[in-house]
Amino acid sequence: MAPMTTPGEEMHALVERLYPLCRSITGDGVRATLDVIGEYLPLQVHEVPTGTRVLDWTVPQEWNIRDAYVADATGRRVVDFAASSLHVLGYSVPVAATMPLSELRAHLHTLPDQPSLVPYRTSYYKPAWGFCLAQETLDALPDGDYEVRIDSTLADGHLTYAEHVVPGQVADEVIVSCHVCHPSLANDNLAGVAVATFLARELAERTLYHTYRFLFAPGTIGAITWLARNAERVEQVRHGVVLACAGDRGALTYKRSRRGDAEIDRVMRHVLTASGRPHTIREFTPYGYDERQFCSPGFDLGVGSLTRTPYAGYPEYHTSADDPSFVAPEAMEDTLAVLREAFGVLDRNRRHLNLSPYGEPQLGRRGLYGALGGRSDTQEAQMAMLWVLSLSDGGHDLLDVAERSGLPFDTVATAADALRDAGLIKA
Amino acid sequence: MAPMTTPGEEMHALVERLYPLCRSITGDGVRATLDVIGEYLPLQVHEVPTGTRVLDWTVPQEWNIRDAYVADATGRRVVDFAASSLHVLGYSVPVAATMPLSELRAHLHTLPDQPSLVPYRTSYYKPAWGFCLAQETLDALPDGDYEVRIDSTLADGHLTYAEHVVPGQVADEVIVSCHVCHPSLANDNLAGVAVATFLARELAERTLYHTYRFLFAPGTIGAITWLARNAERVEQVRHGVVLACAGDRGALTYKRSRRGDAEIDRVMRHVLTASGRPHTIREFTPYGYDERQFCSPGFDLGVGSLTRTPYAGYPEYHTSADDPSFVAPEAMEDTLAVLREAFGVLDRNRRHLNLSPYGEPQLGRRGLYGALGGRSDTQEAQMAMLWVLSLSDGGHDLLDVAERSGLPFDTVATAADALRDAGLIKA
Amino acid sequence: MAPMTTPGEEMHALVERLYPLCRSITGDGVRATLDVIGEYLPLQVHEVPTGTRVLDWTVPQEWNIRDAYVADATGRRVVDFAASSLHVLGYSVPVAATMPLSELRAHLHTLPDQPSLVPYRTSYYKPAWGFCLAQETLDALPDGDYEVRIDSTLADGHLTYAEHVVPGQVADEVIVSCHVCHPSLANDNLAGVAVATFLARELAERTLYHTYRFLFAPGTIGAITWLARNAERVEQVRHGVVLACAGDRGALTYKRSRRGDAEIDRVMRHVLTASGRPHTIREFTPYGYDERQFCSPGFDLGVGSLTRTPYAGYPEYHTSADDPSFVAPEAMEDTLAVLREAFGVLDRNRRHLNLSPYGEPQLGRRGLYGALGGRSDTQEAQMAMLWVLSLSDGGHDLLDVAERSGLPFDTVATAADALRDAGLIKA
Repeated sequence: MAPMTTPGEEMHALVERLYPLCRSITGDGVRATLDVIGEYLPLQVHEVPTGTRVLDWTVPQEWNIRDAYVADATGRRVVDFAASSLHVLGYSVPVAATMPLSELRAHLHTLPDQPSLVPYRTSYYKPAWGFCLAQETLDALPDGDYEVRIDSTLADGHLTYAEHVVPGQVADEVIVSCHVCHPSLANDNLAGVAVATFLARELAERTLYHTYRFLFAPGTIGAITWLARNAERVEQVRHGVVLACAGDRGALTYKRSRRGDAEIDRVMRHVLTASGRPHTIREFTPYGYDERQFCSPGFDLGVGSLTRTPYAGYPEYHTSADDPSFVAPEAMEDTLAVLREAFGVLDRNRRHLNLSPYGEPQLGRRGLYGALGGRSDTQEAQMAMLWVLSLSDGGHDLLDVAERSGLPFDTVATAADALRDAGLIKA
Repeated sequence: MAPMTTPGEEMHALVERLYPLCRSITGDGVRATLDVIGEYLPLQVHEVPTGTRVLDWTVPQEWNIRDAYVADATGRRVVDFAASSLHVLGYSVPVAATMPLSELRAHLHTLPDQPSLVPYRTSYYKPAWGFCLAQETLDALPDGDYEVRIDSTLADGHLTYAEHVVPGQVADEVIVSCHVCHPSLANDNLAGVAVATFLARELAERTLYHTYRFLFAPGTIGAITWLARNAERVEQVRHGVVLACAGDRGALTYKRSRRGDAEIDRVMRHVLTASGRPHTIREFTPYGYDERQFCSPGFDLGVGSLTRTPYAGYPEYHTSADDPSFVAPEAMEDTLAVLREAFGVLDRNRRHLNLSPYGEPQLGRRGLYGALGGRSDTQEAQMAMLWVLSLSDGGHDLLDVAERSGLPFDTVATAADALRDAGLIKA
Repeated sequence: MAPMTTPGEEMHALVERLYPLCRSITGDGVRATLDVIGEYLPLQVHEVPTGTRVLDWTVPQEWNIRDAYVADATGRRVVDFAASSLHVLGYSVPVAATMPLSELRAHLHTLPDQPSLVPYRTSYYKPAWGFCLAQETLDALPDGDYEVRIDSTLADGHLTYAEHVVPGQVADEVIVSCHVCHPSLANDNLAGVAVATFLARELAERTLYHTYRFLFAPGTIGAITWLARNAERVEQVRHGVVLACAGDRGALTYKRSRRGDAEIDRVMRHVLTASGRPHTIREFTPYGYDERQFCSPGFDLGVGSLTRTPYAGYPEYHTSADDPSFVAPEAMEDTLAVLREAFGVLDRNRRHLNLSPYGEPQLGRRGLYGALGGRSDTQEAQMAMLWVLSLSDGGHDLLDVAERSGLPFDTVATAADALRDAGLIKA
C-alpha cells in the first residue's frame, strides 16, 4: 500500500518545485512562480507597468535573465547561473566582456566567514552587475583573463503580483502576505509561500467570518504597489500576518504590529501561549519584511509577522545553504497549525453586550445552569457563562474573557454562543 | 471573680445559638435567625411575596420543614433531620413512601472522598427531594425497604430579609452584606453574620461619615431582591463588603470588586498590607457570594468580598465539619478588627484642594512647622503636611498620599485635618 | 612646564574661595558670594526689600553679622565665629551678656553622636540666638561664667539673588537653580554653585535651542521670591534642574519632578542609564531643595533635582565636616558632564511628523540608504532613519525613538536631521 502523503510533505514538494526558479522583484521568474501556485489555488494576477507611481516609489523596469557565467581561459564556466539563480547579482545589467581576475573581483561577492556558501545579493535601484560565489571557489581561481557574460534585459515591462481571496460573512479583511521575490532560497520565502497556499486551500473549506486575502507579491515594492492600488480596500483590512521563514526547524516567532496591542497581536500571543509551544514574541521594529509597509505610520494596520527563526537569525539566511533540505515538512505543518488556530480565534472573537446586566440572569430557568446547588465544583462551561456575562459590557472581547478567566478560548466562545442563543447577550 | 467575656467569645456564642436552625432561602428558619440577630441589633425585616418579579428572577415559593427521616424496617431512623438540618436536601418537596434501598439511592447524597461527613445540598429551582448522609452511614445500610418521609411544605409565602442602618453625616452608603440562607454551617455563614452584627453595634457608637447599611438576606435571590426593590438607593451605594467565611483559622482574603480599583479595593489592600497580617488579595471573579450580584455589569458597584479562607478552599466547606468548633473567637475578632480599621480609613479618606498651591505655604507662621531649621531629621507629621499639600490637586485622595509617602494613613489624615483647620486645603 | 588646570580643579578653587563667607538667606555674605560668581559670569543681581509679599511669604529682615564668640573667664574665645561661620546660629539676634554655663547651655547646639563636628543650625523666622560647637568642646568647658557676644543686626534691608541667562533660539526656558544661603558648607551647596557657574560658561559657547536661566538664590524664600516676581516668565519654563550636593564622591542621584514623567525626567534617566554610570533615580518627594517650590502643585513645573549623595544621606551633611576636602574635582566634573549631556539631548529632542507616512519613503533615491540590498547587516544610521520615520506620528519624540530602538540618542537625532533635510519629516 502506498504511504499517505502528509500536508507537510505536500508543502515541501511545492518548495522543491519552486526552488530552481529565478525570482526577483519583477520578471518571468515571478510569473512562473505564480503559475505553479495557480495550480493549487485560483489566483488573480496583476501586471503593473514600469513607471507607475506607487506611493513614494515608481515601478522599476522589468528584469529578465537567460544565462550568465564566468568562464576561464579554457572556456570552463567557473561560476554558472544554470547551477543556481543565486550566482547572479539580482537585477544585474547585461555584460559581455573579458577581463583579468583583478578587475573582475570588484564584481564578485562572497562570504569569507562561510567560505563554502554562495551569498544572495541584489542591486535593484542602482545599475550594477555582479556574480555571487563561494569564497572557496574564488580562492581556487588562478589569475588571468575571464570571460564574463550576463544575458539579461532590463526594460520597460511590468511588476507582477497575485491575490487569492476567500470570502467571509463580512467584508472586513484579514490579509496574509508573503514575498515571492527571493530566488533559490527555501525558507526565505518558499516555505512561507507554501504555508500560505495550503492555508488558503484549507480556509476555502470553512465558513468564515472575515474575508481572507492572500497576497503573493515581491517584497517592499510589491506591498507598496498593492497598498497604492487598493486605497479603499486598505480601509477594510482589520488584521494581517506577514508570513516568512515558515519552515526552518526553530521555534515560532511572532513580531507584533506597530500598534503592539492590535487584536492580531493579542490573538497570536494567546494562541502561542495557550498551545504550550516554545515561542518568542518580539516587539515591532521598522525592519524585517512587508510589515514595514503595512505598519508604516500612515497605514498603521494591525499586521504582525510570523516566522520561525526570524530573518538574519540563522547562519543559512540569504545563502545557498537555505535550500530545500533546510526546511522541514513538520515545521511547515506546525506553522500552518498555529495560523489555523489563530484565525479560528480571530473569527470567533467578538465584543458582546449583556442584555440582562442587572444582577445575574437566572441561567437555570433557561436550561443553562446545573439545577442542583451547593456543590463546590462548578463546571467550566458555567464559569465561562458567568465570565462572559460579567465582561459583556462593550469593553471586552471574548479573548479578554479567556485571558481574565484563564479558561480556554473555545470554552468561552461556546458559552457566548449559548448566551447569544438564549437572548442574554448580543454581539 | 467571673472571667471577662471577649467579643470573640460573644460572637462565638451567637454562632452556636444560630447553628441548629434550619435556614434556607425562605421560610421560618430565616425568620428565627433574624429574631435572634434582632436581640443584638434592631432590624427592619422585609417579607416579599412569592411570585414577585425581582430583576430577571421571581421570588419562589416558601419552603418549610418540620421533620424528615429515613427509617429502616425496624423503624429506626438511620437518617434524621432532627440530628442536623444538613440531612435534608434543601427545598425538598414532601415525600412519604417506602422503597427499597436500590431505588432510594438516587435520592441520597454523600461525599465518597470524605466518608464520615454529611454534605450540604439544595435544589431550589428544580422540584426534587433527597437526603444527605455520611458515606459510612450509607455503606452500613443493608438492602431492603426503607420508609422515607419529608414533612415539608412548598407554598406561596414570602422571602424574608432584614436591614440595619447606622446613619452617618452623608447619605452615601457603605453596604455590608452577608447571606443567611445556609443551614447548620458555622463558618459559611454564621461567622459572617456574627461579625456583621457586632460590627454594626460598634459603628453605632461612633460618629460616622458614611451611612452604613447591613443586609442579612438569603444568597443570590436575597441580594437580587434587595437590588430590585432599592433601585434609587443603589445609586447611593459608594462602597461595600460581602462578608462570608469570617471565622476559620486561615488568613484573611480580600477579593476585589469587579472594578478592581474601587476605593474599597484600595482601602482593604492598604489596611491589610499596612497591618502586616498575612493575607491574600484576589482579583474579581464572577463566582462566589453576593458580590456576584452587586458587581454585575449593570450595577458594577464598588463592593468586594472579605473572607478568611475563601469558599471551597477548605475541606470542611459545605459539610457537617463546618460546625461551631471550626470557627475561632480570635479569628472572628480579627476579621472584625480589619473591618473596623478599613471603615475608619474609608470614613476619613477625602480628596482635597490646596488653596495655597503656588510655592509652599509658610507653615511656620501658622504654627504648623518646627521653627528651628537646618536639622536633618524631619518629623513625620511635618512630612505628612508637605505630602498632603503636594498632592491636594483634586486628583489624589488621602489614601494616595499615604501610599505615595509611605506614611501611616492616620498620620496623613491628621495632617490633613490640621491643614484644613488652618484654611490651607479644602475637601 | 606648568601643569594644566582641569575644570574640576578650577571649580574646586571657586569652592575654596567661597567657603569662608558667612552666607544666609539675606545679607552681605550673599552679596559677597554673588560678587565672586560675577567674576566668572555676568550676573543680574536683584535686591528685594524687606516686607515684600512673595506668594504666601514675606521677605524677612536682613541679617548681618560682624563678630560672635563665647569667651571664658580668662577672656579666651572658646567658640569663635571668626574660625567658622557655622559657629553662630543663623539669623541670631544680637546678644551681649555674661551668664553661667548652666544658663548658656540652652543656646548651645552640638552633635552628641558626632562629637568632634560642629552642626549647622538656623532660626530664620523665630527670633533666637545661639552657638554651634563640637560636643568635645562643650564637654571640656568648666562650669562658671562666660561672656557671650553676637554682634549682628536684624533690620529692614533686602533679599538678594542673581540670574544669568544664556539665550537660545526659542524663549522656552530651562532653569538651573542652586541655593546660595548655606554658610561654610562645601558640598551643600558651593559645589552646586561652582558646577552651575561653569556650566553657564560652557553653554555660552554653544548654539542653544532653549534659553537657559541660572538662578543663584537663597533656599526656599529665594525660589519663592523669584517665582512671585516672574509669574509670566514661569509660563515659559519648560524644564529645570535644581542642583545641590554636586561634589561629593558618591554616585549621582536624580530625583524626578512631581510629574514623574516630565521630559527632563526622561532625559536624565536616559542619559544616566545610557552612560553606564552607577546612579539612582528617586521618585519625587515634597522635601529637599527648591524643587519643592518649582514643583508645588500650582506651578508643577518639569523640574527635577540632581545631586550626588542626596541631602542627609552622608554623615558630613550639615556639619563642619562638609568642608572643601569633602568635595572632589573629578566629582564636580562628572556632575558637569552629565548636565552637559542631558542638556544636549534636551536641546535636540523634538517630535516630528512623517510627511511621507504611507509605506516607507524610498530612501535610496534620496541617497539615504545603501543601494546594495540583500545584506543581512543593516547600518545603525539606516535603522535610526527607519525608526524615526516609523515613530514620527506626532506622539513620540526622538528620545522615545532612542529608547524604543535601543539606538544612541545622537544617532537618532542625526538621522532625524538627515530626514528633515530631505523633506521627509518636519518638526
